[in-house]
Amino acid sequence: MKQSQLVTKTRREAPKDEVSKNAQLLVRAGYVHKEMAGVYSYLPLGRLVLEKIEGIVREEMNRIGGQEVRMATLHPSEPWKQTGAWDNVDVVFKIQSRTEKEYTVGQSEEEIVTPIAKEYIESYKDLPVAIYQIGQKYRDELRAKSGIMRGREFTMKDMYSFHETQEDFDRFYQLAKEAYLRVYERAGLVAKATEASGGAFTTKLSYEFMVLTDAGEDDILYCDQCSYCANVEITDEQEGQSCTRCGAGTLSRAKASEVGNIFDLGTKYAKDFNFTFKNKEGGEQHPIMGCFGIGITRLMGVIVEALSDEKGIVWPESVAPFHVHIVEIPSESADVHAEAGELYRELTEAGVEVLWDDRDVRAGEKFADSDLMGIPLRIVVSEKTLTAGKFECVERESGHTSHKSISELIGHLTA
Amino acid sequence: MKQSQLVTKTRREAPKDEVSKNAQLLVRAGYVHKEMAGVYSYLPLGRLVLEKIEGIVREEMNRIGGQEVRMATLHPSEPWKQTGAWDNVDVVFKIQSRTEKEYTVGQSEEEIVTPIAKEYIESYKDLPVAIYQIGQKYRDELRAKSGIMRGREFTMKDMYSFHETQEDFDRFYQLAKEAYLRVYERAGLVAKATEASGGAFTTKLSYEFMVLTDAGEDDILYCDQCSYCANVEITDEQEGQSCTRCGAGTLSRAKASEVGNIFDLGTKYAKDFNFTFKNKEGGEQHPIMGCFGIGITRLMGVIVEALSDEKGIVWPESVAPFHVHIVEIPSESADVHAEAGELYRELTEAGVEVLWDDRDVRAGEKFADSDLMGIPLRIVVSEKTLTAGKFECVERESGHTSHKSISELIGHLTA
Repeated sequence: MKQSQLVTKTRREAPKDEVSKNAQLLVRAGYVHKEMAGVYSYLPLGRLVLEKIEGIVREEMNRIGGQEVRMATLHPSEPWKQTGAWDNVDVVFKIQSRTEKEYTVGQSEEEIVTPIAKEYIESYKDLPVAIYQIGQKYRDELRAKSGIMRGREFTMKDMYSFHETQEDFDRFYQLAKEAYLRVYERAGLVAKATEASGGAFTTKLSYEFMVLTDAGEDDILYCDQCSYCANVEITDEQEGQSCTRCGAGTLSRAKASEVGNIFDLGTKYAKDFNFTFKNKEGGEQHPIMGCFGIGITRLMGVIVEALSDEKGIVWPESVAPFHVHIVEIPSESADVHAEAGELYRELTEAGVEVLWDDRDVRAGEKFADSDLMGIPLRIVVSEKTLTAGKFECVERESGHTSHKSISELIGHLTA
Repeated sequence: MKQSQLVTKTRREAPKDEVSKNAQLLVRAGYVHKEMAGVYSYLPLGRLVLEKIEGIVREEMNRIGGQEVRMATLHPSEPWKQTGAWDNVDVVFKIQSRTEKEYTVGQSEEEIVTPIAKEYIESYKDLPVAIYQIGQKYRDELRAKSGIMRGREFTMKDMYSFHETQEDFDRFYQLAKEAYLRVYERAGLVAKATEASGGAFTTKLSYEFMVLTDAGEDDILYCDQCSYCANVEITDEQEGQSCTRCGAGTLSRAKASEVGNIFDLGTKYAKDFNFTFKNKEGGEQHPIMGCFGIGITRLMGVIVEALSDEKGIVWPESVAPFHVHIVEIPSESADVHAEAGELYRELTEAGVEVLWDDRDVRAGEKFADSDLMGIPLRIVVSEKTLTAGKFECVERESGHTSHKSISELIGHLTA
């Protein structure tokens, strides 16, 4: 895409009322527009990042057998009253309609998915089932100061699974845990699965997935050898101690941000909706249910918090809005513009996603914008590169600079 | 996908409270689940159809320069008060939050997109701009009895454009009209653009796009030679009269359903938000704005209404959840199952989207389910086809039957 046609522009200053680093950078770089505290619109660049993240999540959920749906987000109040959440969960929005009926907009979807599963699951032969969606969630938060990391509206992948036995649930729980860790790794993050308490409706354990970042709100201890990890709030262990899980490693302490969770919901919702299936012995039995969440917009915010530097955002290639940022240095010579255009066409035809800064502004402003926007590879086209016959290529993350011809670039970028 | 793993099943009976044909068929075939009047969840098959429709719409909007975004759906009340819609539009939901602030969930997005455009558009050089999204809309309807064709929650493509001059708006209006007609044609429908009044906030004309279908709520007159079309409510002309527009054709009368609209909003919203740009003469000027809507879920409903037959749904290939429905006829011979599996693998590898009915149920039930679900091509695998060396292929729409080998099928389906 040509940057001159992009609807957004960068801003030099962050909005005064924005205290979070993620929103400051994303607003300045033109990825998001703030509508109110905790509610953002995602502009063309921001939408591209969300779609990249969603693509990764979707692949990993499909790989473990998840079936994608789109559940209603406007809910009647009845199922919420049936589970007790209408009166007991304080972030549930309550909407009075002209028909006198009460609605909510979903802050989660157990109240919708359980009746759907009940409709189709009759026998143990129909189990297990995992249903997921990627969509908007709404929470009536009293405060919302963490930018896109905690919103009154946010995008979430929520999966719900139904199982015949606790053993089958545990098997799927492990599969989902591994899928979650793959999602974070593919999104350029280092994440750990920690055990935590199970939330409002269960005394069972749950997993929280924590990304190591100095910007994190939590403190965790993790083993440098095995997968053990715990929130410091639920353990007496200290940094530097030996790991009691594997016996081989040492515990390190780090700041971390939560980027997902998995709950064993037991039979709570199946009981609320009188949902049973016929088991192998011919009796009626409640299925065991799991809930598996990843905050898509939150994950985008954590990536910004964890990977940005003093110049701006640093996107991992897997979630960047474009792979390459062609920065054309304005010149009296029409050849520079023509050469940039030719490079743009050849890379695009080779399947590389390119943003081409074809604007008529100073080089310094272009470089500052490019650093702020955080596209992984910058290719500079100037009179100098014309003379040299090679383009200057700068990696956003490392600052590493190299010089490559078009064919070398295509070989490198499509390898 | 294997049908035995699909979470949904067909139902013999439509729900008693469902009066619309589209929802009766979609619920019976397992595409949607009704949450309340006017609110449906889209199950795996329904989600696939929505994504196909959205893919067509997205391609056509991108082709005319639309930039895709995702605007907030939870809105503060302030911009709605600024445009007058808070008090004057009766379908606006009003939400009271714990923070005493009032919110709504968007029934349209002029109140969000205009301030976004104002943020980035400073000069005539920044125009024109067209921003669109595909997402949920919410309307506090008193009645909702048309299935997925008129919902309290529905999916919509809404595009908003901003222009320097009326001439430039008119140019884009024509481009968008052509893009809309391509969308409907690609979705298997015959649509006409009719002139209508401009809606709540403008006295200007607008286009309504009408699909010819006996299930339509409107009556239109259209010329059999030129593109003239009018709602019978706004013309004195009669069926059989000569067309006064082209002079050559004759007017036909037909029932039709609205599937999209385009409004010239003039400077209404730009004025409400004090949004001006610097024009060529150096003065400040309000941009002219257009609104371009296509109801995605409504379009899905209209396709069902327009194309279904007494046996069930008939999807055009462009929006069908799968291209091919392999129906394996249960047999004592393990060869039938193996042959169906081999066909499934080869077609899938060739890029054909296949649903494989591998369930252990009677042939008659399988054929009835297949007719109800409406996948364009059914391929029967049975002991008979094993003997013949060719598969029986039945086109859902025409009922046309042929016999083809695997290689003939792959050639036919990937042509």
